[in-house]
Amino acid sequence: MPKYLLYVGYLDGDFTGKEAGDVDSSVGLHRVLEPAGVLPQAAWRLDARPGTGPDEVLIAVERLNLDAASFRQLREAHPGDGSAVRAEVLRIIAERGKMHNPVTGSGGMLIGTVERVGPDSPLGLRPGQRVASLVSLTLTPLAVSDGLAGWDGRGEQVPCRGHAILFARSAAAVLPDDLDPELALAVLDVCGAPALTTRLLARHRHDRDTPVSVAVLGAAGKSGALSLAAARRAGATRTVGVVPCEAERDRLVAAGLADAVVLADARQPVPLATAVTGALGGPADLTVVCVDVPGCEHGAILATAPGGTVLFFSMATSFTAAALGAEGLAADVTMLIGNGFVPGHAEQALALVRQQPAVRHLIEARMAAD
Amino acid sequence: MPKYLLYVGYLDGDFTGKEAGDVDSSVGLHRVLEPAGVLPQAAWRLDARPGTGPDEVLIAVERLNLDAASFRQLREAHPGDGSAVRAEVLRIIAERGKMHNPVTGSGGMLIGTVERVGPDSPLGLRPGQRVASLVSLTLTPLAVSDGLAGWDGRGEQVPCRGHAILFARSAAAVLPDDLDPELALAVLDVCGAPALTTRLLARHRHDRDTPVSVAVLGAAGKSGALSLAAARRAGATRTVGVVPCEAERDRLVAAGLADAVVLADARQPVPLATAVTGALGGPADLTVVCVDVPGCEHGAILATAPGGTVLFFSMATSFTAAALGAEGLAADVTMLIGNGFVPGHAEQALALVRQQPAVRHLIEARMAAD
Repeated sequence: MPKYLLYVGYLDGDFTGKEAGDVDSSVGLHRVLEPAGVLPQAAWRLDARPGTGPDEVLIAVERLNLDAASFRQLREAHPGDGSAVRAEVLRIIAERGKMHNPVTGSGGMLIGTVERVGPDSPLGLRPGQRVASLVSLTLTPLAVSDGLAGWDGRGEQVPCRGHAILFARSAAAVLPDDLDPELALAVLDVCGAPALTTRLLARHRHDRDTPVSVAVLGAAGKSGALSLAAARRAGATRTVGVVPCEAERDRLVAAGLADAVVLADARQPVPLATAVTGALGGPADLTVVCVDVPGCEHGAILATAPGGTVLFFSMATSFTAAALGAEGLAADVTMLIGNGFVPGHAEQALALVRQQPAVRHLIEARMAAD
Repeated sequence: MPKYLLYVGYLDGDFTGKEAGDVDSSVGLHRVLEPAGVLPQAAWRLDARPGTGPDEVLIAVERLNLDAASFRQLREAHPGDGSAVRAEVLRIIAERGKMHNPVTGSGGMLIGTVERVGPDSPLGLRPGQRVASLVSLTLTPLAVSDGLAGWDGRGEQVPCRGHAILFARSAAAVLPDDLDPELALAVLDVCGAPALTTRLLARHRHDRDTPVSVAVLGAAGKSGALSLAAARRAGATRTVGVVPCEAERDRLVAAGLADAVVLADARQPVPLATAVTGALGGPADLTVVCVDVPGCEHGAILATAPGGTVLFFSMATSFTAAALGAEGLAADVTMLIGNGFVPGHAEQALALVRQQPAVRHLIEARMAAD
């Protein structure tokens, strides 16, 4: 690790720093107010002042995209009351210096325009570029200046004036010219899921040259639809999409992204496993969990073949439920925590949307419904 | 999945049943009282009555081994008050029909003697055998009959009279004659960790025939020591054990299980990563997290090489902290949820203890300290 700069004050809108040993400012440690020593994601409160350190990037924020689990929790905490949801989001951001839902532990992402780039930033960004952050809002210093006046508190996409900070060890994508920014943001928000699905199928083919079946839970959502499309492209022999209601079933059948579409509640393990097994002719070699409600761990495990893999991409996943559930079922499955960062993930997901109109239409329909 | 039996009543101490479709009693669904439809681990309350169904096994319980995270939480909730800890464990078991800590979500395991074996049980057990359950207490119907009178509430190992039920899809190990039962139980409790470590190293060698370095966090504990021994046996090129205090460092150095031993707080990501990187000459290819305190996710990710793997074997792991932490660090690491079930795991762990006196001594010292 490189030597780091300990930022000790502001000067002309920039942090000034001094060298101090072996710690790494690139991960944003200097922005952590409390508790000391943890990384920004684990911090309770960040310093969101707009001055930029030598390796930081300042973003003029335009829109937040709240994580689905977070928005769902906020909406359920304030049923039918959009202004209460808005007030709570404002309160969280003011209190924590970031949009980090303390109940779900999740955040979301943002789009905006690059305003200033520190001379040592390795991200390759230039002022004036419109970008989407590819790191979570749970670790991104953020301040809001318009009271979220343009948002009614009723959807995940939040028009927003304010600023945010990107660190050196971070990730951002320049928004493509050929796609609507809201669509691009929605896709980039979940681009880790199709990328990891692709990687797992490639690994399966490398390890064993056998047919591979894939089940996607929550298949009509953004990450689910992209994962289904990625699975088919990466050579899945047979795919099933699981959805919770008839409207989603009809939409997914019309999209033609899966070989089979079944209706099941992913929180009911035995009916879920029965449905998946029936559709695939056996349990799935890879099960991708994209459902944003708690309690889907056991069903996913039960629906997966011995030696198979469960990829948890839902922020509502419980670590202990998964670990103890697999053990308790004597289930020899590999369980992966969905990592939102996979090299090339943004480009791959945008390519899927460009090349497969069905994916694009599903995501647009989902955005319209939110 | 086979057809299942819906147990509708007791007769001569046995459940009686009738066939009812495609659901599976082998996972213990018929023992779930609330909420309906979830598996026993996810249930709030189980039916722990001693009657056995045709595929169940009744165990006369002798000792519980509380999960480390669970016991730590109980002890911290009642500092210095062993009888309050005991009362709370009794309350949990009476209320839930299982020892499932509602705060940590974790349980532990048990030893006892096989009392009755249903005619359709596939576990291969016989009445009179002394066994350890290899599935978590969080899903094992359990009733206590002695008020835990033999336990002072001050250690993880709980002498206990009562009974428990094993399902068909379950796992149990007959206790070996040549090892002290307390030692065997302590080893079997964590036997998934060395088994999964071994499997990951084998996979690494299969995928890439390159040197592989391993870091174990919490290396002087039971699962940590076993994982270190397993890593070396499975061909790790270099290993480092991370411990939080000088006493553990001295013990681990004396055991000679790791190529290097370093002192670091796994909750402090940057110092941890610096220590691991210094000891291994670079970040770890595989990091095994065996620390039973929350907040170790980011350090583990930061200590792991791009393309490497983090194996989370601590029940204190937060799914969201891991998922968002890796994304936020733009860290291309594979993150695994430690699955306590790996075929052959019990035999492998017991063999490590038999063949490596240093592992045995470390675990015995740990048990004495608890």
